[in-house]
Amino acid sequence: MSHSSVGIGRARPANALVIQSGGPTAVINQTLCGVVRTCLEFPEKIDRVIGAAHGLHGLLHENLRDLTSTPLRHWQSIAQTPGAALGSARLKPRESDLQRVFAVLAAHNVRYLFYIGGNDSAEAAQLIRQHAEAFKSDVRILHLPKTIDNDLMITDHCPGYGSVARVVTHLIAGDDLDNRSFYNGVKINVCMGRHAGWIAAATSLAKACREADEDPINAAPQLIYLPEVAFSEQKFLDDVQRVYDRIGRVTLVVAEGLADQIQNKKFEGELDEFGNPQLSGSGKLGDHLSHLIKTHLKVDTTLGATRVRADTWGYLQRSLTGLISCVDAREAFEVGRAGVKYMMQGETDQMVTIRRVMEDPYRAETGLCDLALVAQKTKTVPKDFIADNGHSMTESFFKYIEPLVGELPHVHAFSSERLAKQLPDYVRA
Amino acid sequence: MSHSSVGIGRARPANALVIQSGGPTAVINQTLCGVVRTCLEFPEKIDRVIGAAHGLHGLLHENLRDLTSTPLRHWQSIAQTPGAALGSARLKPRESDLQRVFAVLAAHNVRYLFYIGGNDSAEAAQLIRQHAEAFKSDVRILHLPKTIDNDLMITDHCPGYGSVARVVTHLIAGDDLDNRSFYNGVKINVCMGRHAGWIAAATSLAKACREADEDPINAAPQLIYLPEVAFSEQKFLDDVQRVYDRIGRVTLVVAEGLADQIQNKKFEGELDEFGNPQLSGSGKLGDHLSHLIKTHLKVDTTLGATRVRADTWGYLQRSLTGLISCVDAREAFEVGRAGVKYMMQGETDQMVTIRRVMEDPYRAETGLCDLALVAQKTKTVPKDFIADNGHSMTESFFKYIEPLVGELPHVHAFSSERLAKQLPDYVRA
Repeated sequence: MSHSSVGIGRARPANALVIQSGGPTAVINQTLCGVVRTCLEFPEKIDRVIGAAHGLHGLLHENLRDLTSTPLRHWQSIAQTPGAALGSARLKPRESDLQRVFAVLAAHNVRYLFYIGGNDSAEAAQLIRQHAEAFKSDVRILHLPKTIDNDLMITDHCPGYGSVARVVTHLIAGDDLDNRSFYNGVKINVCMGRHAGWIAAATSLAKACREADEDPINAAPQLIYLPEVAFSEQKFLDDVQRVYDRIGRVTLVVAEGLADQIQNKKFEGELDEFGNPQLSGSGKLGDHLSHLIKTHLKVDTTLGATRVRADTWGYLQRSLTGLISCVDAREAFEVGRAGVKYMMQGETDQMVTIRRVMEDPYRAETGLCDLALVAQKTKTVPKDFIADNGHSMTESFFKYIEPLVGELPHVHAFSSERLAKQLPDYVRA
Repeated sequence: MSHSSVGIGRARPANALVIQSGGPTAVINQTLCGVVRTCLEFPEKIDRVIGAAHGLHGLLHENLRDLTSTPLRHWQSIAQTPGAALGSARLKPRESDLQRVFAVLAAHNVRYLFYIGGNDSAEAAQLIRQHAEAFKSDVRILHLPKTIDNDLMITDHCPGYGSVARVVTHLIAGDDLDNRSFYNGVKINVCMGRHAGWIAAATSLAKACREADEDPINAAPQLIYLPEVAFSEQKFLDDVQRVYDRIGRVTLVVAEGLADQIQNKKFEGELDEFGNPQLSGSGKLGDHLSHLIKTHLKVDTTLGATRVRADTWGYLQRSLTGLISCVDAREAFEVGRAGVKYMMQGETDQMVTIRRVMEDPYRAETGLCDLALVAQKTKTVPKDFIADNGHSMTESFFKYIEPLVGELPHVHAFSSERLAKQLPDYVRA
């Protein structure tokens, strides 16, 4: 490599290192692409762009990739591919790791560190920065927001959220069409969302896919349960019974975080290094709620047994190909690009934010906020986005989310005249 | 209604009745639309087109809709909407129901019955036809194939399959990108398919979304388990271990029908009227396999605990908006249209089939087969579509399925040079 032999000394440009961390999204590679492509615009300051394979794991174990060796023509395709192209991890730097982190950064002449991640990753980034002086490092760190959970403070919304919102809107629109096909279905859908119900809330957009002249109760999801609202099994059963009695079916959504509120967390699996229990990748919460409804729902069984089913969406929501929001993709790229520009202006210890500067038509710009305002903190769904009944979303929420999601499915309600009965009623033997 | 007062006697056109039955698909309304729109081309023979709401349920309880009252301009949108627009049911006519069926058909002057359904529905259609003479009915019945399961005899494939194949290909392509994001993931995906593994097989198309220059073992799904191949927990664990040892991750697919082969069907829920146990809408099989792997997989834990997760796709596969195969949509319409034309030529007791008349470029035509060859029978995935290892698909299968699925996702493999290590290896404290 010719790079290592040129420009020694003060004038020598330093390297940039980029990390993808935490759960992947459908557009996390847009941000990566935004960083890499924009770094190339500053050859006087940035020599190589290095990618750490599998986040902090690659940084600790020196599994580093020279992203400047990736052919330029590949970046467009990489950007459009969901999942973390560099590989991700859920590792938190331990005290004992910090010396190694700075040794690796120094050995590879890294002065600019871009940490693409959520609030746990922000904590990791903050921890590294706090120790930079002690290890005589001049590394600058900017955090680039990414999370389907949409739970980062300060930023209007997070890259990744618009796409998962589009996916779950399609999932509920289709699931409702499926459930409607039968005459007595109760369908439970468990979506991601541990402490914040942003994804569950997004499913309410499926209502907007149906025609306005329908009775609103027909539009799914009829009931949405967020971790922000205290869960009561009795209220849950009453809600389901009320909708069922009215229209003979229910399509409902619960955030997986509800598990925290039910029977002493018996649904949870292993913990990651940030202390987060595994909630997805198991059908237990759905099966529990399904059993609850089967046991308690009062139905007219002359029409046959009630059809109660639960699907747990798990990881399918997060990196799905084919249903990416174009707005989300563009903003994720811009966040990466803005990160490099801010870094070149000397910024550090900040997170790039998205600021909504106009409501209608929607316009957003990037900004910056102090990393300390983001790390370890969770932005839950605010009260004015949740209706008083505790299980549906307000108009303010629709105004907030609609511009982020791109094209929605169109679902056509069926209208036809019922033929007059010619015969007496029938009771099956 | 002016209809009932005109054209009495021999010359009076009769009514057509159309039923949607069994599990819905993303394109079942294309077939409905094909029937209704084509019936309108035969006003001298067909007066009204009637839809039975919720299949046999609507027929028995005289819940009938005048589809000729649905504005013509709505049919294009209805056709593009997944799920059974008329409503479906999983009812089998009992001996005691037959008199009522013919009474309703006579009361509404129905001479042409179109039964859109799978093999259980074909059995129902056959049963009605077998009793027509005894009840002095001249009703003619054609069965129009529909099933995501693709398990109907004679026909090359079934409307609904191409779309579910497209959906599950996207699901696996995305899920693999998600699983790859972590460095040690085993991801189990449970898809639909009770007796036949056509849907599980279709996930192999995700391999075709990746670039050809990759080592084939990298392309997911690495392992596919079909009900057609005897399941052994030991072989399953050995397969998973082998792939994991080779590439440090596994994305695998099992058909829900595998539950039949494990521990005496302990995963099954309630039965429908055809005796089929509920398999979907529960995460039990996935959780069982997940536990099995967690308990038995030998891994290098210095890299952290292995990440074993299971997602059960459930009903989301079936009626998803946004990922419909254009070929499937067109063929589903053609099957409905052909059904009416065959009926007007005097055909009855038949199922409309799709015949593949050219391989490359793909061309298909409609045909007919005897209903008795289809009812209650299941076409499983043939041996020459399953590789000798029992867990992957052959080139013949790819040739079979590729033309049915429409546009696939493009997934870009990441290439970059690894930077030389500058420091000794690191072991985390």
